[in-house]
Amino acid sequence: MKADLDRLMAARDLTAIVVDCSDHFSAARDYLTGGVSITQGKVIKTVGAPPILVVNAMEIEEARKSGLQVYSYYDLGYAELLKSLNGDRDRVAAAFWIKCLEAAGVTGGKVGVYGVGELNTILDVVSRLSAEYPAYEFVGESGMTIFHEAYLTKEADEVARMRGIGERVGKVLQATWDYIGSQRADGEQVVKADGSPLTIGDVKRFVRRTLLDHDLEDTDMIFAQGRDAGFPHSRGESDEGIRLGQSIVFDLFPREIGGGYHHDCTRTWCVGYAPDAVREAYDQVAEAFDLSVEVIRPGMGAKVPQEAVQEYFEKHGHKTTRSDPQTMEGYVHSLGHGLGMIVHERPLLSHLSTDTLQKGNILTIEPGLYYPERGFGVRIEDTFYLSEEGELISLTPFHKDLILPLSG
Amino acid sequence: MKADLDRLMAARDLTAIVVDCSDHFSAARDYLTGGVSITQGKVIKTVGAPPILVVNAMEIEEARKSGLQVYSYYDLGYAELLKSLNGDRDRVAAAFWIKCLEAAGVTGGKVGVYGVGELNTILDVVSRLSAEYPAYEFVGESGMTIFHEAYLTKEADEVARMRGIGERVGKVLQATWDYIGSQRADGEQVVKADGSPLTIGDVKRFVRRTLLDHDLEDTDMIFAQGRDAGFPHSRGESDEGIRLGQSIVFDLFPREIGGGYHHDCTRTWCVGYAPDAVREAYDQVAEAFDLSVEVIRPGMGAKVPQEAVQEYFEKHGHKTTRSDPQTMEGYVHSLGHGLGMIVHERPLLSHLSTDTLQKGNILTIEPGLYYPERGFGVRIEDTFYLSEEGELISLTPFHKDLILPLSG
Repeated sequence: MKADLDRLMAARDLTAIVVDCSDHFSAARDYLTGGVSITQGKVIKTVGAPPILVVNAMEIEEARKSGLQVYSYYDLGYAELLKSLNGDRDRVAAAFWIKCLEAAGVTGGKVGVYGVGELNTILDVVSRLSAEYPAYEFVGESGMTIFHEAYLTKEADEVARMRGIGERVGKVLQATWDYIGSQRADGEQVVKADGSPLTIGDVKRFVRRTLLDHDLEDTDMIFAQGRDAGFPHSRGESDEGIRLGQSIVFDLFPREIGGGYHHDCTRTWCVGYAPDAVREAYDQVAEAFDLSVEVIRPGMGAKVPQEAVQEYFEKHGHKTTRSDPQTMEGYVHSLGHGLGMIVHERPLLSHLSTDTLQKGNILTIEPGLYYPERGFGVRIEDTFYLSEEGELISLTPFHKDLILPLSG
Repeated sequence: MKADLDRLMAARDLTAIVVDCSDHFSAARDYLTGGVSITQGKVIKTVGAPPILVVNAMEIEEARKSGLQVYSYYDLGYAELLKSLNGDRDRVAAAFWIKCLEAAGVTGGKVGVYGVGELNTILDVVSRLSAEYPAYEFVGESGMTIFHEAYLTKEADEVARMRGIGERVGKVLQATWDYIGSQRADGEQVVKADGSPLTIGDVKRFVRRTLLDHDLEDTDMIFAQGRDAGFPHSRGESDEGIRLGQSIVFDLFPREIGGGYHHDCTRTWCVGYAPDAVREAYDQVAEAFDLSVEVIRPGMGAKVPQEAVQEYFEKHGHKTTRSDPQTMEGYVHSLGHGLGMIVHERPLLSHLSTDTLQKGNILTIEPGLYYPERGFGVRIEDTFYLSEEGELISLTPFHKDLILPLSG
C-alpha cells in the first residue's frame, strides 16, 4: 500500500522517484497525487516527504487540487533555460529534469523513472541526462516494480472504491442481460423490434452507454461469439448478428472515467439454449472457479490455485499450458491477476509465478475452456478481495446463469 | 505521410523500427498496422519492407486482421528462452527483443524504439539490451520524431476519415447546444424540468453519451465556467451549476472509440446573455481567429500566424506570451497544433516554432483570451485541413454564436 513507498524506496536505494506525465493516463501519477487532470509535468517523491508537482502554468489550478506543493515551469526557471540553451528544446527538456529534482532537494543519487508515455522520448531524455549529469543515476525497473509492489495490497478506501465500482458493473451486466433478453428470435437469429439483426456492435454500444450512466468507461471489452469466443482475446466482430445457442464470452474490464480503478469480470451466455458441449464445458469451468475460490488462502504461493485448476482440467481430458505450453485448445491462460488502477497487476496466478497471495490483494479468478475449432469458448470471472480476515470476497454481484432467455 | 517512412528511416540511419506494444493505445502501432486490438507484442519495420507483428498466441487472430505477417511468441522461441534463462522474465524480455529483430532479418545496427508504455520498463529493457547485445544500438528520439515527421502530412483516406469525425462532432455540438437550450432559468441559475440545477457534470455526461452514439469517445473534455474558464486547461467542476451570463469554454477533443483519429474544437457560450466584457473579448478572439485563417499559406513558418495574432492582441492592450512569457492573463498559449491519432502533433503554431506549414497538414486554430481574476475566459477553435490546393478548410461544421438562448 501507499504507506510502503518510503520503505520500498529505501530497499531500492532510490533517492527520488520521478513520474513523468504526458497525455496518457498514468496509474503511478494518480497513486502519488490522488488523481490530477494534467497533460504534462512531473511528480517527484523523495524518501519521507510528500510528492511535489511540476506543471505547465496553464494546469496549475488543476494540479493544486491535489493539495501537494505545486511549481510551474516558470517558477523553476524554464524560460531562462530556453534562453541559455538557444531554444534547443531537447537539451532544455533534460536540463529541466535537474531543475525539478533540485526543487525537491535532490542533487544527486539514484533516481527511479516511472510513468506512462512515449518510449522514444524517455530513452532520449535519459540518455542525455546520463551523459550530462553524472551526479545522478537514472534507472528503470521491470517486473515487480516499486509501484507494483505497493499496489499489491489495497488500503480500506481503495477497497471501498473498488467495491462500489463492482456494484455499478453488476448493474451494467444486469441491464445488458435485460437488453438482450428483451429482443426476439427469428429462426436462429436474435432480432430487434424492427426485425433487423441484433449485432455485437449494438450490444457493445448499449454497454458503453450504460457504463457511462454509471460514471465508468469501457477499455475495449470482449463480446465474442462462437469460434471467436474460442480465442481468449478476440474482441468479437461488430457487424456480426447474435445467434441462438452460441457461446458468448463477455469480458468487461471498465474503469472510472478518465482513468482510475478497474473492475474485471466475465460471463458466458448462450441466448435461448446451450448445446451439450458448451453446457458440459461450462459446468466444468464453474467447478474450476468454485475450486479455486475454496483453495485460496493468504500466504499461499500464487501458483497453487492455478495448479489445482490445471490438475482438475487435465483430469477431465483437457490440455493446459502446463501439459502443453503451446496449446491453443483447452485451458490456455493463467487463472487470474491482481487488479487496481492497472488491469494487470500482481500477483500473477500462473503456474510459473513466484508471487505470494496476501491479505489486502484484489485479484481476478477467471478459469476458461477454449475450443475454436469446435466453435466455442467459455470463461467465468469475478473480481475478489482477499480480506484482512483471510476471506476471499467477490466484488462482482451478478449471477452466473448460462442460458439467457428471450422474452421479446 | 506513411509512404515517407522508408526515406525517413534512411535519413536517420535506422536499420529497424520497433514499436513496443502494451495495454496503452499507441498511434505508432496503429499507423504501421492500420489498427489492431492487441495488448502486448511488437511491430517491427525494416527499410523497404512491410512491418511484421509479434504477439501473444491469444491475440493472434486479432493481429492477423492487419493482413501483415504475424508471429506468436512461441513461433519465435519464447518458451525455449524461458527454459534456458531459468524463468528470469526480465532477461527473457530482453533476449526476446533480439529474437523478434532476427525474425525481421535484423542482426545488428541502429534500432529506433517507439510506442507508448511504462517508462520504467523500457529503460530497464534497453539498458539490458545495450549491455548484452553490442551488435545493436537502441535509440530513442524526441521532438520531431520519425513518426511526427510522417504524421505531418495526411493521406487522402486520413483526411476523409478526419472530415467524417468532424461532421459527427458537429452533430454532438448541436445536440449539446439543444440540450442546454431546452432547460429553463430560475433566477441566474439554469435548472432542469424538475427544478434542480443543471450541472457541468450533467452536461459532460450528456456529451459523453452523445459522442458514443457517434462512435466517438471523450478524452477529458473541458467544460469550464466563469473564473475556471480563465485557466485554459481547467476541466470545470462537475458539481457546479450552470449560470446565466457566465462564459463557458467548451473544448472537445474526442477520438474514435478505442483509439484512432481525433477532432479538436472549442466554443465559448454564454447562456441567456453575455456581459459586455465577455462580448468584447469574444469579438476580438473571433477577429483573431479570422485573421489567422486568412494569413495561413503552405510554405509559411508556423510562427507567422501566431505572431500576427499576438500583434493583434497586443495592439488591443492584452498581454501575450511574447510580450510577457509568464503572463497568466491575456493571450497565454500557442495558436494551434497538428492533429491526428495524437492530440498534439506538429506543426506547432507557437512564436518560438521552427516548423513550416505544408499542404496536407491537419491543424487547429485556437486563439483565446483569459482573465481569471475578472471571472472569464474565451476561446474559439476549429480543426482545419491545409489542402493540396493550398486552401485552409474547416473540418468543424458548427456555428460560432456566443449566446445560447433558453427555450425551456
